[in-house]
Amino acid sequence: MELTALDNIKIVTAKESKITSVDFDNLSFGNVFTDHMLVCDYDNGVWGDPEIKPYEPFTMDPSSRVFHYGQAIFEGMKAYKDENNDVWLYRPDQNHERFNKSAVRLAMPEIPEEIFIDGLKKLIEIEQKWVKKGKGNSLYIRPFMIATGHGVVASPSNQYRFCIILSPASAYYSGDVKVVIADHYSRAANGGIGAAKAAGNYSAQFYPTKLANQEGFQQIIWTDDATHTKLEEAGTMNVFFRINDTLYTAPTSERILDGVTRKSIIDIAERDGIDVDVRPVLVSEIVEAAEKGTLKEIFGAGTAAVISPISGFSYKDTYYELPKLQNSFASEIKEKLTNIQYKLAEDTFGWTVKI
Amino acid sequence: MELTALDNIKIVTAKESKITSVDFDNLSFGNVFTDHMLVCDYDNGVWGDPEIKPYEPFTMDPSSRVFHYGQAIFEGMKAYKDENNDVWLYRPDQNHERFNKSAVRLAMPEIPEEIFIDGLKKLIEIEQKWVKKGKGNSLYIRPFMIATGHGVVASPSNQYRFCIILSPASAYYSGDVKVVIADHYSRAANGGIGAAKAAGNYSAQFYPTKLANQEGFQQIIWTDDATHTKLEEAGTMNVFFRINDTLYTAPTSERILDGVTRKSIIDIAERDGIDVDVRPVLVSEIVEAAEKGTLKEIFGAGTAAVISPISGFSYKDTYYELPKLQNSFASEIKEKLTNIQYKLAEDTFGWTVKI
Ligand SMILES: Cc1ncc(COP(=O)(O)O)c(C=O)c1O
Ligand SMILES: Cc1ncc(COP(=O)(O)O)c(C=O)c1O
Repeated sequence: MELTALDNIKIVTAKESKITSVDFDNLSFGNVFTDHMLVCDYDNGVWGDPEIKPYEPFTMDPSSRVFHYGQAIFEGMKAYKDENNDVWLYRPDQNHERFNKSAVRLAMPEIPEEIFIDGLKKLIEIEQKWVKKGKGNSLYIRPFMIATGHGVVASPSNQYRFCIILSPASAYYSGDVKVVIADHYSRAANGGIGAAKAAGNYSAQFYPTKLANQEGFQQIIWTDDATHTKLEEAGTMNVFFRINDTLYTAPTSERILDGVTRKSIIDIAERDGIDVDVRPVLVSEIVEAAEKGTLKEIFGAGTAAVISPISGFSYKDTYYELPKLQNSFASEIKEKLTNIQYKLAEDTFGWTVKI
Repeated sequence: MELTALDNIKIVTAKESKITSVDFDNLSFGNVFTDHMLVCDYDNGVWGDPEIKPYEPFTMDPSSRVFHYGQAIFEGMKAYKDENNDVWLYRPDQNHERFNKSAVRLAMPEIPEEIFIDGLKKLIEIEQKWVKKGKGNSLYIRPFMIATGHGVVASPSNQYRFCIILSPASAYYSGDVKVVIADHYSRAANGGIGAAKAAGNYSAQFYPTKLANQEGFQQIIWTDDATHTKLEEAGTMNVFFRINDTLYTAPTSERILDGVTRKSIIDIAERDGIDVDVRPVLVSEIVEAAEKGTLKEIFGAGTAAVISPISGFSYKDTYYELPKLQNSFASEIKEKLTNIQYKLAEDTFGWTVKI
């Protein structure tokens, strides 16, 4: 066997596990973390050795660039436990690839597979008791990178920290999701960083989302900032529209995140004979379809909620309620996708990776 | 005298000053910090008591929201020492107001004047030996706020930290600045956060700026992202164009930061009989003026460099060199503005504030 950096990974185990103090029946998303994290620092053009160690605070200079210039990117993925107690990752190569695309766009260093993928596997191996069996349960994985270099000068940092933290999650029930279609605010510019999973993209959405919440809507469907005529993303998810029996979703672009759930849905739908049309989706055609009754479903797609059905939308002060369907594409595809993730159905695509 | 929160400000002084180890003749911008900082934490809907204490690292949970969702804003301002050893701030009310506008846009709490302005005055009083006399010397002031709440869920934090750090600065000589006019990348979206001094706006510029650097240009003049036909900002400065004897600059908008230097320049120019036309400036008219020889000057305007003359620009692979002027508006206005800041000329506007 060849020695890789990861065979030499330094592991410092926590004295005690917090797991007994965690109420797994009442988890709120992203609030509890496991006993260990993976940390790897970059300096002088090279990544140091990754280290797995107890989850603990960072010591950060007040002038750290992440605080001032927002050089920060992240990923979101999950690990699942099957009936045989084996733990599985879902398309981790996609998250690794996207992380490196985000890194390039934010002028940050790319991270090698040995650290991102192999490091993650090692970390999860150590934390496998935190992955609970049963559909809906998972271990949410948060790889991220921040600029740790000092100095309040607006240029890329020379130091970075890559880190992976883990948070146990249960089925994400989003409740009744009503959305408003954006006609003023927007999340991404042409030639901007919308396609990167950059920290700064998210805080930009908080205020418009708060305004939507005050009007009784849970999320915003973002439109292109130039014309507000094209439907692009739903909150922090990609978005699908079903008109009659065809699914529509926008092509990825500089303004749209290339979601792993989105592309999995497209592949599953196509495999199983559902028509999918990937092309710009206009607000006007969705409004028209809603009026004619041909708009059957809208749903968001992302790692956290998998598929999140939308019950209605508002556009320029008119509210359009969607029909309640018995056999929705949303629930059919969600079932198929989660069955693959939990190893309850054959993984014809080769998406699952055993730890 | 009324008791304000600031009369009770907690002050812990540093055991030793670092000042003797600082080479004031060879300062590089934003790298050295003074002995103390101001810190104030927000929790549960209220700001705690501000504290001045030795400059030291923060202890931050790996799940702190600033790392994941980029809730981070800042300001940039300067303190100047006059010939009588009095220390002056320049239009601090403008920075405070803009900070709070940024806060609202990022769904962060606004900060009261007692903490931002009075706290800053107190901090500078303590650090006044760090403000060196002589035109060009200053103390750069960096107020900032970061989301310190824990949890990887994409919603506004409940905890924040406001902090002010100080860095001694000498005259900023930017050298020969050639710029490229953006025709693909952009810094801000309609309905986005370009008008906020949000950390995420800056990291978004690093990669395109790196590409420009590789082609031999120091900065980018950003254009509107929808059409790339309107000239909006130069790097992290506002931008002015002189055609014949008129100065042109874009109106502030959702995409453009409302710069204090920019508005000071407009006021000084108007007071002194220079025509200023605040209106969208088209790439086409600047190219045409350059070709006809009526384009006399382009300069950036911002706190760090005050005014930064641009020697030429590239647009779609054609390079336009600007004439070398004897009596440029840039140097004339810079002289007037810095004379006000250093108390060498009468401050007819009431912009300077004594510590
Ligand atoms: C802006 C945005 N769009 C879409 C998605 C969906 O991507 P994925 O399916 O890879 O989780 C995410 C992340 O969850 C996101 O942050
Ligand atoms: C994007 C941007 N534009 C313009 C400016 C100029 O603003 P001010 O003159 O207030 O420093 C700054 C800050 O320096 C900036 O970051």
